[in-house]
Amino acid sequence: MDMEWIQANLLAQTPSCAQLAADAARNRPVTLHGQIQTLRRLGDVVFVVLRLRDGLLQCVLDNPDRLDAARLLREEAAVKVSGTLLPEMRAPGGCELHITELELISLPGQPRPLPLNRKSNGMSLDAQLNWRPLMLRHQDQRDRFRIQAELCRAMRDFLHREGFTEIHTPKLVSAGAEGGSNIFRLDYFGQAAFLAQSPQVYKQTMVGVYERVFEVGPVFRAEKHNTVRHLNEYTSLDFEMGFIDSFRAIMGMETAMLRSAWLELAEVCQPELERLKLDLAPPGPIPAVRFADAKRQIQERTGWRSRDPNDLEPEEERLIGLWAQETYGSDWVFITHYPTTKRPFYAMDDPEDPRVTLSFDLLYRGIEVTTGGQRIHDYDQQVAKMRQRGLDPEAFATYLMAHAYGLPPHGGLGIGLERLQMALTRAANIRQAALFPRDMKRLTP
Amino acid sequence: MDMEWIQANLLAQTPSCAQLAADAARNRPVTLHGQIQTLRRLGDVVFVVLRLRDGLLQCVLDNPDRLDAARLLREEAAVKVSGTLLPEMRAPGGCELHITELELISLPGQPRPLPLNRKSNGMSLDAQLNWRPLMLRHQDQRDRFRIQAELCRAMRDFLHREGFTEIHTPKLVSAGAEGGSNIFRLDYFGQAAFLAQSPQVYKQTMVGVYERVFEVGPVFRAEKHNTVRHLNEYTSLDFEMGFIDSFRAIMGMETAMLRSAWLELAEVCQPELERLKLDLAPPGPIPAVRFADAKRQIQERTGWRSRDPNDLEPEEERLIGLWAQETYGSDWVFITHYPTTKRPFYAMDDPEDPRVTLSFDLLYRGIEVTTGGQRIHDYDQQVAKMRQRGLDPEAFATYLMAHAYGLPPHGGLGIGLERLQMALTRAANIRQAALFPRDMKRLTP
Repeated sequence: MDMEWIQANLLAQTPSCAQLAADAARNRPVTLHGQIQTLRRLGDVVFVVLRLRDGLLQCVLDNPDRLDAARLLREEAAVKVSGTLLPEMRAPGGCELHITELELISLPGQPRPLPLNRKSNGMSLDAQLNWRPLMLRHQDQRDRFRIQAELCRAMRDFLHREGFTEIHTPKLVSAGAEGGSNIFRLDYFGQAAFLAQSPQVYKQTMVGVYERVFEVGPVFRAEKHNTVRHLNEYTSLDFEMGFIDSFRAIMGMETAMLRSAWLELAEVCQPELERLKLDLAPPGPIPAVRFADAKRQIQERTGWRSRDPNDLEPEEERLIGLWAQETYGSDWVFITHYPTTKRPFYAMDDPEDPRVTLSFDLLYRGIEVTTGGQRIHDYDQQVAKMRQRGLDPEAFATYLMAHAYGLPPHGGLGIGLERLQMALTRAANIRQAALFPRDMKRLTP
Repeated sequence: MDMEWIQANLLAQTPSCAQLAADAARNRPVTLHGQIQTLRRLGDVVFVVLRLRDGLLQCVLDNPDRLDAARLLREEAAVKVSGTLLPEMRAPGGCELHITELELISLPGQPRPLPLNRKSNGMSLDAQLNWRPLMLRHQDQRDRFRIQAELCRAMRDFLHREGFTEIHTPKLVSAGAEGGSNIFRLDYFGQAAFLAQSPQVYKQTMVGVYERVFEVGPVFRAEKHNTVRHLNEYTSLDFEMGFIDSFRAIMGMETAMLRSAWLELAEVCQPELERLKLDLAPPGPIPAVRFADAKRQIQERTGWRSRDPNDLEPEEERLIGLWAQETYGSDWVFITHYPTTKRPFYAMDDPEDPRVTLSFDLLYRGIEVTTGGQRIHDYDQQVAKMRQRGLDPEAFATYLMAHAYGLPPHGGLGIGLERLQMALTRAANIRQAALFPRDMKRLTP
């Protein structure tokens, strides 16, 4: 019988581009692999730009005829190259590899129909999304989603340090938490099931278990919006914390989290941020204004006539963002005390004015990136608010179990990861901040 | 206009139980908050066991009549207490708080119908799951899911160190990747959509972008299994890596990841592991045997008559687990070279014997916790295998874009987080390893 032992074994990583630049200063010989981003032949020299996991590396192949593999080279081929790294200020990353050995590892089945060396290729966003698997190989795209990954990691690391426990809660649910008809429905072995619009009921339940919890996962909204800032599936970072003394504690925690993430990003994503020409000033302190005041302010300053006195339209959010920037020099602004009628049944009303809730949105560069607030923790109060809204507490029996058997005062928030990345990277459309976006018309790729 | 500045502000965490034990050695005065797990009055003394975020703390209140709040105390009340910590070997965590001040923060709406101080309360698993929001407050449950959270974190941190980029891919998809009818279907604005059975097509696509990627997220299987090891929604940790020289590289990477996670868990979850009486020997090296050999071995040793020559039944996996333990002293065993007929269209056939694939499962204590393998990276080869299976390559056009425009040799795996936790914590039923499990009959809580 064949049997072998599998050792814990790390396949060596390709060095990072920063490491390569350091190696170049010492004229180090290196061997590495990657796919060919661009290929140019100039007389007897071949210039190969190699796509490494975190950047591009210019390589030069002199006298290509001496190598058999060189004849077969083409864009998107996977290759292994050996040679000497030399500093070269004109090359991306500041170094250049002089190839001495070349091994062809795999070849594409078809020639690449699009170049990857210009920014937009003049394509419409829709066409770019149709070609997404290929377009994501563009350095600009790779940088954007490296930033997304590091942003997510930095926020998660912060929450871990602050004593939050990570949870995984079901996306197949028996009822919606956010109300309304914006919910996907499906057949679940003969029962009606829905796709979770948020982990709201579960994260509140888990406050009674771990005091502080968070989750990063998909949420689903069957909204019939076709705008530059809506997706029908997005990644939500949710946290919920117990024993708060005010809903300001949640805003304080978010400010601290964003500040920590921004400081970390500026360090770990320095090359990406430079290439995208993005400045990252760490947020905080962040101005907070009441919903009614913000609304009045915009009306007075711009003459904007609001169609909905109880909510903010995207254009109003944009105007508030501009106003916060001008008045307080801040890209960020908390809007607090949203009207009770526009917040879900679990939102806690302000004891000083029950027409408004102890809730907030956070706007970043005029775009809503967070909704949060304090929740009702008292059982009788929650049951009463449900009844007042015509909801049957019986239908929420397992949710109310947490309240019935005790919850501390608590609150939390949900951050749309794509919204945050969109505003951070100054993308014009949220579809540019999702690897494979889902909208009313788009279910592929 | 009201306006205030929100500072980056961390609401102080309750100290960890380890920190409290250290404070006790110095007779430190402390103030902390928690919910009351159990309450016992013995004459003029009240014993309060407080539920803190990571453990329990015994508190003693002498002469309770001197404090107004003491009369209102009940189980599951949220309280803030001040006092002096003293070492007490008989108390959980080795210390005890002598309460001098007590503040009642919130009260439960109803008396708790179940005690939380005995292990199973004699309830059936089904009843326990119905009471899940409350039962999760049991220390045993809290320990299990703290382990899950730390396990997930340790694996993610490992992947980050090894140069993997985290991705978020859609769960609403236009076609299934794993084949078969085990897929949930829903209406998506008039189109037919499905819930992703795995991020397979996306993670392969992303190998062409970042070389190494991973995702942790929900996957959905409409399997009509009602067994102790199946869930219809579970959390999958998927990774995929390019430029592999053999499918063994994936097994080597997994072994390294598990080893790293086990070593980290033993440290950060020491209290949880001790309370659950779990031993954690770090895995590796791990024996690997071929599918056909493992099958023959079990038949010869136990007389087991397999009903399916091309797959392993759960009972066979259990027997293989026992055999690996006896023969190699290993809780873990890789089964390699699964029959081609049982693996999906993207699996790479063994060039030495196309009846089997360069694929593997990993069994841990006789339970399948991972499926992985090398994938086809060549475009023509992938199209041919699809045609051979009666699949229309046109229907996979955006998936095949990655192959058409070049992919390096690559492979990866999916780990069922609940399966891994189930085996690690020696749970008899996978429902004990999901916070809110979903099975054919269960959609609540």
